Amino acid sequence: MAAHTRRTPREIMSQFWSPAVRALTPYVPGEQPREKLIKLNTNENPYAPSPAVEGVLQRFAVDHLRRYPDPESTALRQALAEAHGVEPEQVFVGNGSDEVLALAFQAFFCQSRPLLMPAISYSFYPVYCKLYDIAYRTLALDDDWRISLDAFEADNGGVVFANPNAPTGHGHPRQAIAALLERITESVVLVDEAYVDFGGESAVPLVDTYPNLLVTGTLSKSRSLAGLRVGYAIGSSELVEGLQRVKNSFNSYPIDMLASEIAIASLKDTPHFQATCQQVIATREWVRQQLELLGFEVLPSQTNFLFTRHTRHAGEHLFGELRERKILVRHFNKDGLSDFLRISIGTDDEMTSLVEALRTIV
Amino acid sequence: MAAHTRRTPREIMSQFWSPAVRALTPYVPGEQPREKLIKLNTNENPYAPSPAVEGVLQRFAVDHLRRYPDPESTALRQALAEAHGVEPEQVFVGNGSDEVLALAFQAFFCQSRPLLMPAISYSFYPVYCKLYDIAYRTLALDDDWRISLDAFEADNGGVVFANPNAPTGHGHPRQAIAALLERITESVVLVDEAYVDFGGESAVPLVDTYPNLLVTGTLSKSRSLAGLRVGYAIGSSELVEGLQRVKNSFNSYPIDMLASEIAIASLKDTPHFQATCQQVIATREWVRQQLELLGFEVLPSQTNFLFTRHTRHAGEHLFGELRERKILVRHFNKDGLSDFLRISIGTDDEMTSLVEALRTIV
Repeated sequence: MAAHTRRTPREIMSQFWSPAVRALTPYVPGEQPREKLIKLNTNENPYAPSPAVEGVLQRFAVDHLRRYPDPESTALRQALAEAHGVEPEQVFVGNGSDEVLALAFQAFFCQSRPLLMPAISYSFYPVYCKLYDIAYRTLALDDDWRISLDAFEADNGGVVFANPNAPTGHGHPRQAIAALLERITESVVLVDEAYVDFGGESAVPLVDTYPNLLVTGTLSKSRSLAGLRVGYAIGSSELVEGLQRVKNSFNSYPIDMLASEIAIASLKDTPHFQATCQQVIATREWVRQQLELLGFEVLPSQTNFLFTRHTRHAGEHLFGELRERKILVRHFNKDGLSDFLRISIGTDDEMTSLVEALRTIV
Repeated sequence: MAAHTRRTPREIMSQFWSPAVRALTPYVPGEQPREKLIKLNTNENPYAPSPAVEGVLQRFAVDHLRRYPDPESTALRQALAEAHGVEPEQVFVGNGSDEVLALAFQAFFCQSRPLLMPAISYSFYPVYCKLYDIAYRTLALDDDWRISLDAFEADNGGVVFANPNAPTGHGHPRQAIAALLERITESVVLVDEAYVDFGGESAVPLVDTYPNLLVTGTLSKSRSLAGLRVGYAIGSSELVEGLQRVKNSFNSYPIDMLASEIAIASLKDTPHFQATCQQVIATREWVRQQLELLGFEVLPSQTNFLFTRHTRHAGEHLFGELRERKILVRHFNKDGLSDFLRISIGTDDEMTSLVEALRTIV
């Protein structure tokens, strides 16, 4: 119910709000339904987090919660540094990668020149621009729905994009990101790698070479911890220091003790992480084949979702028909995207149900 | 180690930072020492949280963590509404009351007229002003170290203060807050009640009468959950809606699933809450007597700390002597406050050790 209420912007407007707040159009996240549905709309992982998480909950000494957490999140940053082959001073953590991105926009993109971003990417980016009054310019994708890295001019107040991109699924190889960084040296290039573990190539190995590269990531997708709210950024220590300054002017202790311990246990379980990512990738490629057999065009994907349209059926129609069959996918009512569905990869059983449902619809 | 490093502002300055970030002076929270100390410096609760918290951890289904949490925090807002006798639409929640305060500053205080605050109050308030470029004016406390509510003029861009105040400990009764709200009707009055459960009188019953009153609170102190990061605001639905708009432009899901369930369990355990608050109050009054016998001046306190100075010993000296005896209290190296120590109330054993140590020092 509540999730529905907020999707219709309320008409309340208050004299007490800061003037800029009246102009905000907040981000609308994918619906979290109360009823029992096959939920393929918010790119959650269909597999449980590492079994080590259960052990953390069983062992955790509740009395510790009366203390404030470490404001530096030292242990968590250490674990992330080890997982990514960097130094802890190159790691920043936050309450979900949405918080990390918001702080990064404030720390780096409040510049006199406009921020550049793809016309189609994570739809939260323009929301942050509104929030911080950042001027931005969007660049069209190429004819194959890929980000044109060459189109980003060097004269800018920053560059941000998701790689692999959402909701399109395409990812550029590391070498292409390096080529971009050879050209853009005077502003921060933020590469949002929320989906990279499902077949993308991470730009993290470039952070030692390019001090203006910031890579963000999350434990929500590939670590099955969306409910926990842990995200991070990796970059030069001067970028991390900039993020710390903003964070410490906003909220000194964003990561709670339990979230930190659970995240660390998850980061140390590489076999579970690799096995579940591989399973998602295998399922994705099976679903692709099935959709193509049903007459869908399916964009190549290095993520845990597919972006697809049918030659004869409108996206909104398919969304509604699936919803009636208790399958929830994501449809964007936006120019250029409205033909498409974004379908998160679930378990094999869930995806078999999806394919069966689509077979009866198309 | 890390906690020490950040207390010396680093000399890094980066061309990549937003210009405003270069001017930030982040808040410095109380030290979280690694060594074994009697820790009376950050106003943490000496007693464990409700035993119901243990049950939440034992029962929690880890698989749920792969899903995003409810972006509305419906269940937690409901529990807070019940605990405070208001409607869920009057409740906003965030990742610690620091986050709630930061979002409130952005939502309400970015105005053309300056924000008013006491010269001595929670030192994060001026930090938020810097972060959001909010002009502010501070008003001196009265001769008894109390906030002069009469000194806040009606022409302002907002008013913020802690009640009871920190680090001084004095609290105004509800009636005094109501009198202020009769005068100030055109801007938001934010009353930060982080410490109210230790003997203060909450302004929450006034929110139905005054649409410009916002009251913030936290589970960190009286609920012994500092490690969890849950804070809230209570006010008119139009103020809550303003906060939601800013939150949903910053981070849609700030409260993680586990934190929400633990907070709810804690809010439902009224007997534990009341017993531990009463114990802290009783200990505080015993410590006050002991300190007075040792020649300390002790300000009246409705909080879980005492603000005190000695007629013959400088605050910094006492801080250092206690630190050598492995007792950590808070000392503010600031004009007007440097004579004082702020001493959090610990267990009876801890406070007996403190009194014994001070007896050998003074």
